[in-house]
Amino acid sequence: MRLIGLDPGLRHTGWGVIEVSGNRLRFVAAGAVSTDGKAAIALRLVALHEGLRAVIEEFAPEEAAVEETFVNKNPDSTLKLGLARGVVLLVPAQAGLPVAEYGANHIKKSVVGAGHAEKEQVAMMVQRLLPGSGKHGKDAADALAVAICHAHHCGTNQRLAQGRVLAGNPA
Amino acid sequence: MRLIGLDPGLRHTGWGVIEVSGNRLRFVAAGAVSTDGKAAIALRLVALHEGLRAVIEEFAPEEAAVEETFVNKNPDSTLKLGLARGVVLLVPAQAGLPVAEYGANHIKKSVVGAGHAEKEQVAMMVQRLLPGSGKHGKDAADALAVAICHAHHCGTNQRLAQGRVLAGNPA
Repeated sequence: MRLIGLDPGLRHTGWGVIEVSGNRLRFVAAGAVSTDGKAAIALRLVALHEGLRAVIEEFAPEEAAVEETFVNKNPDSTLKLGLARGVVLLVPAQAGLPVAEYGANHIKKSVVGAGHAEKEQVAMMVQRLLPGSGKHGKDAADALAVAICHAHHCGTNQRLAQGRVLAGNPA
Repeated sequence: MRLIGLDPGLRHTGWGVIEVSGNRLRFVAAGAVSTDGKAAIALRLVALHEGLRAVIEEFAPEEAAVEETFVNKNPDSTLKLGLARGVVLLVPAQAGLPVAEYGANHIKKSVVGAGHAEKEQVAMMVQRLLPGSGKHGKDAADALAVAICHAHHCGTNQRLAQGRVLAGNPA
């Protein structure tokens, strides 16, 4: 199963693609879609849409996971993040992928084991869990953390689904 | 010149198309794109994107104007509005239209003459300025108000542009 993790931002949206088979994770590719801070917001959203569409077309993930937006105390930043996040949720859904969302603390916990880990600690664990994933920048590392979190949940969901099947209750 | 006004919302996004020639405004069409409150947010954004794309394809406006989001005191509502607004800014820009934004008070002022007018007063003036536009609901009326506001600015911009040309400064 191939997954894409996404960490939304109007300036930089991180993305990371991994391959999951059983308990094994493998790094496929990662990067960030960046937009020109001086351009009109509508055009920045078009650039973000095109960039993400190209990534999904190239790497063909089967599921997507998006980091839930941190609700900032500054309403203006919250709004800008919301604009970008609208596009980040839209693109994989347009491609027919199921889209899951995870809170930041949940992601940290599933990568590092603690919900209030430092960013550096998360990046280090991402590199350890996904050899070859370093040197793609911090937005990519954050996105890979989202993908890892989703991989853990996929595993859980698959086991649960099997459990239900075994129990003769395939709902 | 044909304009579309847009009033973003995740549940209902109002749209209104008008024709402007000189000082004359003519109502063309209006409505709302609504999404299923029980569906996943990513799928609601896909529905909003498709609905607006169909409207722009059918009525072929040359410019778009979007109401600036009211920054709510509830960060969660601000964020949801941001998601919808991201898509509402995206669709006309993807179609190659210039996208303008106007604050709510600015829109009221240009339709009613007062920045703190009641919603009903705005709807009544929209009906008076655009005969035939009634009976399309309040989201449509709000969107038509955005279009009227943009029409006033287009007029001003055109006059300014002509002024510059007459003054031998066609920048």
